[in-house]
Amino acid sequence: MKQSKLFGKTTKEIPKDETSLNAQYLIRGGFIDKSMAGVYTYLPLGKRVISKIENIIREEMDAIGGQEILMPALQKKEDWQITGRWDIDVMMKVKTYFDKEYGLGWTHEEVVTPLAKKYARSYKDFPFSLYQIQTKFRSEKRAKSGILRGREFSMKDLYSFHINEKGLDKFYEQSKGAYFKIFDRVGIKDKTYLTFASGGDFSKYSHEFQTLTSAGEDTIYICDKCHIAVNQEIIEDLKNSCPECGNKNLKEEKAIETGNIFKLMTRFSEAFNFKFLDEHGKENVVLMGCYGMGPSRLMGTIVELSNDENGIIWPKSVAPYQVHLVCLGDDKTVTNEAEKIYDSLQKEKIEVLYDDRNESAGVKFKDSDLIGISLRVVISQRTLGNDNVEIKERSKKEAEFASLDGLVEYIKDKI
Amino acid sequence: MKQSKLFGKTTKEIPKDETSLNAQYLIRGGFIDKSMAGVYTYLPLGKRVISKIENIIREEMDAIGGQEILMPALQKKEDWQITGRWDIDVMMKVKTYFDKEYGLGWTHEEVVTPLAKKYARSYKDFPFSLYQIQTKFRSEKRAKSGILRGREFSMKDLYSFHINEKGLDKFYEQSKGAYFKIFDRVGIKDKTYLTFASGGDFSKYSHEFQTLTSAGEDTIYICDKCHIAVNQEIIEDLKNSCPECGNKNLKEEKAIETGNIFKLMTRFSEAFNFKFLDEHGKENVVLMGCYGMGPSRLMGTIVELSNDENGIIWPKSVAPYQVHLVCLGDDKTVTNEAEKIYDSLQKEKIEVLYDDRNESAGVKFKDSDLIGISLRVVISQRTLGNDNVEIKERSKKEAEFASLDGLVEYIKDKI
Repeated sequence: MKQSKLFGKTTKEIPKDETSLNAQYLIRGGFIDKSMAGVYTYLPLGKRVISKIENIIREEMDAIGGQEILMPALQKKEDWQITGRWDIDVMMKVKTYFDKEYGLGWTHEEVVTPLAKKYARSYKDFPFSLYQIQTKFRSEKRAKSGILRGREFSMKDLYSFHINEKGLDKFYEQSKGAYFKIFDRVGIKDKTYLTFASGGDFSKYSHEFQTLTSAGEDTIYICDKCHIAVNQEIIEDLKNSCPECGNKNLKEEKAIETGNIFKLMTRFSEAFNFKFLDEHGKENVVLMGCYGMGPSRLMGTIVELSNDENGIIWPKSVAPYQVHLVCLGDDKTVTNEAEKIYDSLQKEKIEVLYDDRNESAGVKFKDSDLIGISLRVVISQRTLGNDNVEIKERSKKEAEFASLDGLVEYIKDKI
Repeated sequence: MKQSKLFGKTTKEIPKDETSLNAQYLIRGGFIDKSMAGVYTYLPLGKRVISKIENIIREEMDAIGGQEILMPALQKKEDWQITGRWDIDVMMKVKTYFDKEYGLGWTHEEVVTPLAKKYARSYKDFPFSLYQIQTKFRSEKRAKSGILRGREFSMKDLYSFHINEKGLDKFYEQSKGAYFKIFDRVGIKDKTYLTFASGGDFSKYSHEFQTLTSAGEDTIYICDKCHIAVNQEIIEDLKNSCPECGNKNLKEEKAIETGNIFKLMTRFSEAFNFKFLDEHGKENVVLMGCYGMGPSRLMGTIVELSNDENGIIWPKSVAPYQVHLVCLGDDKTVTNEAEKIYDSLQKEKIEVLYDDRNESAGVKFKDSDLIGISLRVVISQRTLGNDNVEIKERSKKEAEFASLDGLVEYIKDKI
């Protein structure tokens, strides 16, 4: 992509109405645009990042046998009345001109349970799990954390269905593994803690995945020995000690919830009378689990964790492009060579943002740092004099030089 | 994917509340599930189909320089009041518990115009075009055409921005080309007519793309010589003649609108005071075009056009899987061989649905026809006796046989 054609300009100006760092950098870098409080448009750069995050999540859901579906945002009032959640504050309510009323989905138990019930009847149909990556809506009175907490946001929600607790437990553990693989792939695993939370009426614990950041709205208590944490809700019940090793020396930290997994047990299957026939032809209530993770929140969290005073530092896996090719000056020899490099990288299916704009070196370097693509390749009269280009990883201080000869292979090794 | 694990079962039962063929076949085949009138869940098979359609559209939008973004469904009441469209019937209105009111987007001019205005100021920033593939909502009083006309549906909407009519005209023609490429790739080009419609206040004509089907809600008048059509709205103004060749022998047909392109001219840029600075520093109003196409409607149209009494006949480009591998009987030698074929096809990245269920040949063949995957590969004791498998294209009557030796290559040639 030629940067001169890219929609969404960088700006030095810090948006006045945004207090969160993720929103400031993402808006300044041209990744998102604020449409209203808590409601954002993803511009071309931002759309690329969130699609990459979604695809990583998708791959890890598929790997544990999740089947992708797409459920509607418009939801049946009657089904939410069955579970007693119709009048919960977070629910946005929709009206048509002919006075039909819907709920606007902030979660999908009320859709997925009746759906699963239609297709699964015998114990042989179990276990199975369904997920979607879909837009959710929430009435958040205060929306002030950028894309960490929006009124409209992208969510991956997975639901699993089982005939016994052993099966549910097993899948629950698999989902934990999948979640940590995702955190690893998007570069936030080290700062992310499996966090013990209340299990509600049925289980001892549920689990959140909390990522340490000062931007987080949650307070957690971490055990350095076990690399786990306890949330505020249950820390007193646990007498301020680690549920795994008993360590009483827990550290208080600010964190953001980047995922949660929950054994719903029979909460929703009972409400919708979702039963299966066992081997003996006897009816039993289905057990369920739910597993949430928000791609837009992950994107915001990555920005909160991975930046410096000049801008974002994207992990390679989710950077909008793999290479930022920056051409300095408008000397014909230089621009020709830059075009050639641009073409050869594209031929190799390497994603390149090519800064072909008529701007100063200073402006271009500033923008490149702000946008934060992992690898920057600079070509100028000076580098070309030595038959080379300058290569710099966004996360490193020092640049290096690479010869024009064999450049594409050199870059391939770096990305 | 093993069919024994696939969520969403086929059924012989014709859903009583669905009169349209697309909904009947898609529900019976396990592609979609009806959540409410006009609101559907895409099951795993259906999700695969619609994702393929969306990717084809995406590629053709990228090819004409469209830049992908993602705008929100929640829209600002004030912006819809500016254009005078807040109280239009199709608009669903959303309320939060703290009495904030939003519109739920059924189109995005009221979002994209203020957005584009923020980033484009100089004539040098033009032309550009932005598109999204996003969920739209419409208050349809009667929703009875399956996924042809839903209350919630997937839409590709592209918007283009220009400094003069010449530029708009040029892009408008490019978009026509892109649309026909898409219709071609999803297998409905022959039945799709560029259809002249009213241009509103600014242009002589706008254009719809109408696909002939008895399920269509529109009536059009086609000219066989030019392969174009005229819609009902303007046929009288044209004195029942072809706008291209004057032919008066137009044929009345039922059709469904599978796309539309429209020169908005200054309708929205004026409302939002979106101007650019020309070369002389003078302000001029921006010209706009909009270009819509619904992936879910395309999916429904394909089903309406491509089927027989046994089920759907997917074009290869959008079939949920490339190959339907059907194993007959439970003889160990046969199932082992089937597993081997399944593995080797997957190793070659060929998408296979593998019918490993414990069902009769009759049931399996019926289901295979209903699901409609383009290529069926059958392995049984009988075929194995001759060291081969039976291969049948869904669109053909006759089957052929292929030797086990070199089978994968043989299949690769067919898909």
